[in-house]
Amino acid sequence: MSSSGFDRDTIAGTLYSAVLSDVMDSLGLMNQAMRPFVRPLDEALVLFGRARTGLYMPRYGVAPGEDPYEIEIALIDDLKPGDVAVLACDGPTTRIAPWGELLSTASAARGAAGCVTDGLVRDVRRIREMKFPVFHGGIGPLDTKGRAKMMERDGPVVCGGVAVASGDWVFGDADGLVVIPAGAADEVFKRAFAKVSAEDDTRAQLEAGKTLREVFDKFGVL
Amino acid sequence: MSSSGFDRDTIAGTLYSAVLSDVMDSLGLMNQAMRPFVRPLDEALVLFGRARTGLYMPRYGVAPGEDPYEIEIALIDDLKPGDVAVLACDGPTTRIAPWGELLSTASAARGAAGCVTDGLVRDVRRIREMKFPVFHGGIGPLDTKGRAKMMERDGPVVCGGVAVASGDWVFGDADGLVVIPAGAADEVFKRAFAKVSAEDDTRAQLEAGKTLREVFDKFGVL
Amino acid sequence: MSSSGFDRDTIAGTLYSAVLSDVMDSLGLMNQAMRPFVRPLDEALVLFGRARTGLYMPRYGVAPGEDPYEIEIALIDDLKPGDVAVLACDGPTTRIAPWGELLSTASAARGAAGCVTDGLVRDVRRIREMKFPVFHGGIGPLDTKGRAKMMERDGPVVCGGVAVASGDWVFGDADGLVVIPAGAADEVFKRAFAKVSAEDDTRAQLEAGKTLREVFDKFGVL
Amino acid sequence: MSSSGFDRDTIAGTLYSAVLSDVMDSLGLMNQAMRPFVRPLDEALVLFGRARTGLYMPRYGVAPGEDPYEIEIALIDDLKPGDVAVLACDGPTTRIAPWGELLSTASAARGAAGCVTDGLVRDVRRIREMKFPVFHGGIGPLDTKGRAKMMERDGPVVCGGVAVASGDWVFGDADGLVVIPAGAADEVFKRAFAKVSAEDDTRAQLEAGKTLREVFDKFGVL
Amino acid sequence: MSSSGFDRDTIAGTLYSAVLSDVMDSLGLMNQAMRPFVRPLDEALVLFGRARTGLYMPRYGVAPGEDPYEIEIALIDDLKPGDVAVLACDGPTTRIAPWGELLSTASAARGAAGCVTDGLVRDVRRIREMKFPVFHGGIGPLDTKGRAKMMERDGPVVCGGVAVASGDWVFGDADGLVVIPAGAADEVFKRAFAKVSAEDDTRAQLEAGKTLREVFDKFGVL
Amino acid sequence: MSSSGFDRDTIAGTLYSAVLSDVMDSLGLMNQAMRPFVRPLDEALVLFGRARTGLYMPRYGVAPGEDPYEIEIALIDDLKPGDVAVLACDGPTTRIAPWGELLSTASAARGAAGCVTDGLVRDVRRIREMKFPVFHGGIGPLDTKGRAKMMERDGPVVCGGVAVASGDWVFGDADGLVVIPAGAADEVFKRAFAKVSAEDDTRAQLEAGKTLREVFDKFGVL
Repeated sequence: MSSSGFDRDTIAGTLYSAVLSDVMDSLGLMNQAMRPFVRPLDEALVLFGRARTGLYMPRYGVAPGEDPYEIEIALIDDLKPGDVAVLACDGPTTRIAPWGELLSTASAARGAAGCVTDGLVRDVRRIREMKFPVFHGGIGPLDTKGRAKMMERDGPVVCGGVAVASGDWVFGDADGLVVIPAGAADEVFKRAFAKVSAEDDTRAQLEAGKTLREVFDKFGVL
Repeated sequence: MSSSGFDRDTIAGTLYSAVLSDVMDSLGLMNQAMRPFVRPLDEALVLFGRARTGLYMPRYGVAPGEDPYEIEIALIDDLKPGDVAVLACDGPTTRIAPWGELLSTASAARGAAGCVTDGLVRDVRRIREMKFPVFHGGIGPLDTKGRAKMMERDGPVVCGGVAVASGDWVFGDADGLVVIPAGAADEVFKRAFAKVSAEDDTRAQLEAGKTLREVFDKFGVL
Repeated sequence: MSSSGFDRDTIAGTLYSAVLSDVMDSLGLMNQAMRPFVRPLDEALVLFGRARTGLYMPRYGVAPGEDPYEIEIALIDDLKPGDVAVLACDGPTTRIAPWGELLSTASAARGAAGCVTDGLVRDVRRIREMKFPVFHGGIGPLDTKGRAKMMERDGPVVCGGVAVASGDWVFGDADGLVVIPAGAADEVFKRAFAKVSAEDDTRAQLEAGKTLREVFDKFGVL
Repeated sequence: MSSSGFDRDTIAGTLYSAVLSDVMDSLGLMNQAMRPFVRPLDEALVLFGRARTGLYMPRYGVAPGEDPYEIEIALIDDLKPGDVAVLACDGPTTRIAPWGELLSTASAARGAAGCVTDGLVRDVRRIREMKFPVFHGGIGPLDTKGRAKMMERDGPVVCGGVAVASGDWVFGDADGLVVIPAGAADEVFKRAFAKVSAEDDTRAQLEAGKTLREVFDKFGVL
Repeated sequence: MSSSGFDRDTIAGTLYSAVLSDVMDSLGLMNQAMRPFVRPLDEALVLFGRARTGLYMPRYGVAPGEDPYEIEIALIDDLKPGDVAVLACDGPTTRIAPWGELLSTASAARGAAGCVTDGLVRDVRRIREMKFPVFHGGIGPLDTKGRAKMMERDGPVVCGGVAVASGDWVFGDADGLVVIPAGAADEVFKRAFAKVSAEDDTRAQLEAGKTLREVFDKFGVL
Repeated sequence: MSSSGFDRDTIAGTLYSAVLSDVMDSLGLMNQAMRPFVRPLDEALVLFGRARTGLYMPRYGVAPGEDPYEIEIALIDDLKPGDVAVLACDGPTTRIAPWGELLSTASAARGAAGCVTDGLVRDVRRIREMKFPVFHGGIGPLDTKGRAKMMERDGPVVCGGVAVASGDWVFGDADGLVVIPAGAADEVFKRAFAKVSAEDDTRAQLEAGKTLREVFDKFGVL
């Protein structure tokens, strides 16, 4: 069960990012969809879980004695089942890849649900083979070491243009990724299940040849 | 039969965007290819048909009593077999998705040949399952309501960087999408069929080991 | 055998762009990965070979008597087995496609290993069918004629943000493309084979449930 | 007297955009400063007044019988003393100039306090001679006719990246332009007068040679 | 006398870029104004003269024996009184400065009317002191040597987004720069003198307090 | 005396950024000029001094108990006479203003020579009145608090696209800003004084009417 009273697998299996986006719009939450440069590594996988945030800053070298991965490692080792690492790299101009195969392997071993970053990702073929859901701001081979560094974890971030805090829900599919604020989740999921039904009715009538005008006037969804 | 005297299926099955682009270049029509951010949702599908244009403007809310989809619904309900909805959203910075599964369903039910937009598209997995050809400026879940609105249909637009008017022909495949002005269509299609033959000869001789210099001097195509 | 003493097929079959990037980082070569807009046409193919460079300039028309493809044709006809055409078009804003099916056919006939360009590529379905490795800055149908022209070959260029000279090695896979300067190749390949082993050990221990902290402290790779 | 109980001339003569921005930050209004591409035509002039909004859409030609300036003219003719025309053109990529000398002359004749646009402005030398305050997204000679059109006035807009409604206050000086929401104005102006005093004290002590640490610990402003 | 039958000084002293832009719009010449990033070095100077074009390409080093300035020097030494050097650098992303004090000095000595470039300019304080009109795409100290090179002169170019050929007229003032095609110049200048009169009448009536509606209905200009 | 054996005032009074850029080019230091978006607040002031670096990261709020200005204040209070604060904000997309009047006042009181940032600056009218040299990436009123934070001082940074370390020299004038690496300073300044003489001779002969070809062949500078 998710905190919202809905079963986590039912949410992931029934809802989709577009309906969640529409429902949040109707509640006045208009900026919850990450910008379109954030894409899934595998369009067939749904990502759904609780955000665990990490915030990066640019670096131009490694200082003597510095551990460039310290906070990053601590975040990964602290992931709980169903958590999603959300790595804010100030994309889309970032060139570094904070995520790759080894972090995916470590996260999957802890039961994490996936990763979202507006930075780049690497080792993409192996991550796809693992079926581990990753949403990313691009693909590239450059490690973060000496180029960027996670400075804080579980604080407020903006990733892909959307404010995210640890504990918010993230839902990603082929259409993109939306962030559902923790406090709004119950209402959002409830309305989303209702809207899915209305869309099914709309589709059926359109396939039956009704005009869009008739069907929209009847069901009110597009 | 298309208006140009060539069979519509023959054009879609034999020609391709690159040869149409080259032929329009030779006629001095140098700006007919949409910018490369406009991509097919399914690279295996060819889109060919007559343009029916819609023009969007940004919106920041819905006014009391406003029907945000009025002109959009009228355009879709008026599509004729072989028509292609061309939705100009001033891409590529647009964040809204004017096209999705329900509009695809409604358009397909009227025999429309596809959709082109420099805005975003959503419900992409279902549209792919429908095999309905859509060219788009990105993928994202955000509805247009309160963010943008179609203000005019069948007027002149610029979509993906190319001027388009209702009645022009659009041809899209894995290489991109070109617009063939209505008045030039006969000449363009005629020359394109001729160029396809020259390219076939060129390829055969290159595969046989001739130098590019020899083959280009003989057939004059690259 | 490559000049570096390693077998060319072993390099292409064992190494990958991320490990080569990390190893060059460790040698202070921090700007060897092309920017992420340069993508493979087919993510399943590895591109590995010696660079042969071509440099383009913008053109706005064809002068009387001008041969717009002269230097381009000469470069292709001079490719040796294992060579990779590296076409610098000042991407990513370029709109022209300097590479397509016929150049791929001609290059493959000479044993060339592939093509890299920060410009666009066209005829992408046929190139994919040929299994000829091409890395590109986008896909589009526009020919170069009257829009751009190769002005020099085998000189120094910057392609995808990286300096490349004829004789350098290029290695591309699903994660992107790195350039290995000719003078550093021996050391880079030697270190890369060693790092692959350490990553294999790291992965095995992570899968066995060790923390990232333990494994990183032991093997020192991420 | 402004609606906020402070004298309009005192506000314009004493406050400045940076202190208003800081004060709105302290109230949680973090997105009230237009993006830095919006600049004053004359850095010596302060612009302060009530917003009157206009919203533009792109156009690609003039339809038969269309009056391209209809709503624009109505907005200008309806300006009251102290009003500021706020023209939202979806900058900074707009190329059209919705504002120029004649609109400045007409607005000044009605007692308007100035103009803000994220589009371009033209006739800049004459507008400067008039000492009419204009904030703009660039300078250029292109008229809007056939390129863009005001579609709505006094509705909600986003201009220079900030949401503005008719009735909000706008304050611009050499540092940029901030929007003060109508409902927050009283509190914002009151706090701003207080912060100006603290900054005067801080400056005096820094000039007297105290360290920034000492002075910041004492007055708490930077 | 200019080729158009109007005195060159009268044109430069009476007309302005905005009226020329409007008049070319009325003739269907909609893309004659350079993009707004092209700005005058001195807003008080009017630039008017015949274009003499130069086309640059990127370079990454200087080849042995290469004269990087050869064609550039030839163009400058060939300037005639009233000519304007138009240097196309594929701005606005160019970082090199093809123009500076010494080229200004050499050009002024030959009676040239000024320079336009979508690249950068340097030595700006001295050029301003010379009162030599220069329109530029930015200011920066980087020489072209090893970074870019003029490859052709007096051919067709696109500069600041506008097609220009040697022999076209360029007119620049504080509002920006427009290109008047050689073949349209007579008609453009004739209409522009007429429109200046209508604008003077409009301004006078607006200053007298008439509404914009009344004045626009009478004179038809904005 | 600067460390290079040249008098600091003589360098600031005789040299200029363009000649320093050319001389560094001749030594193979090709990336020492900040990108053109970094501009002087007052084009009449020369900025010359030793770099003292600060590195910022994005922030999305202030944590409980956090001092958002801690390292920034420490850097300013530690400035020595002739030092130049170099604040790296990952411009040009930054929206925050890390520099303003109070930091200028505090820095000037310690004898600092100026400030360079690729972020924004505010309080620009007062800073201009102080005649304190500031080079900036834009002008805007937004404070850094809750938006960005200096995380490190005197480490390696990239500012305006150029690598800078504390101890390097920075030289800025109306043409832009160049960074002279500490280790190359002696040679750079020596060559720059020599090149200034050659440019004076070139200018004199061009003013006397010689062709650019003759003068360039004689003095070899442009």
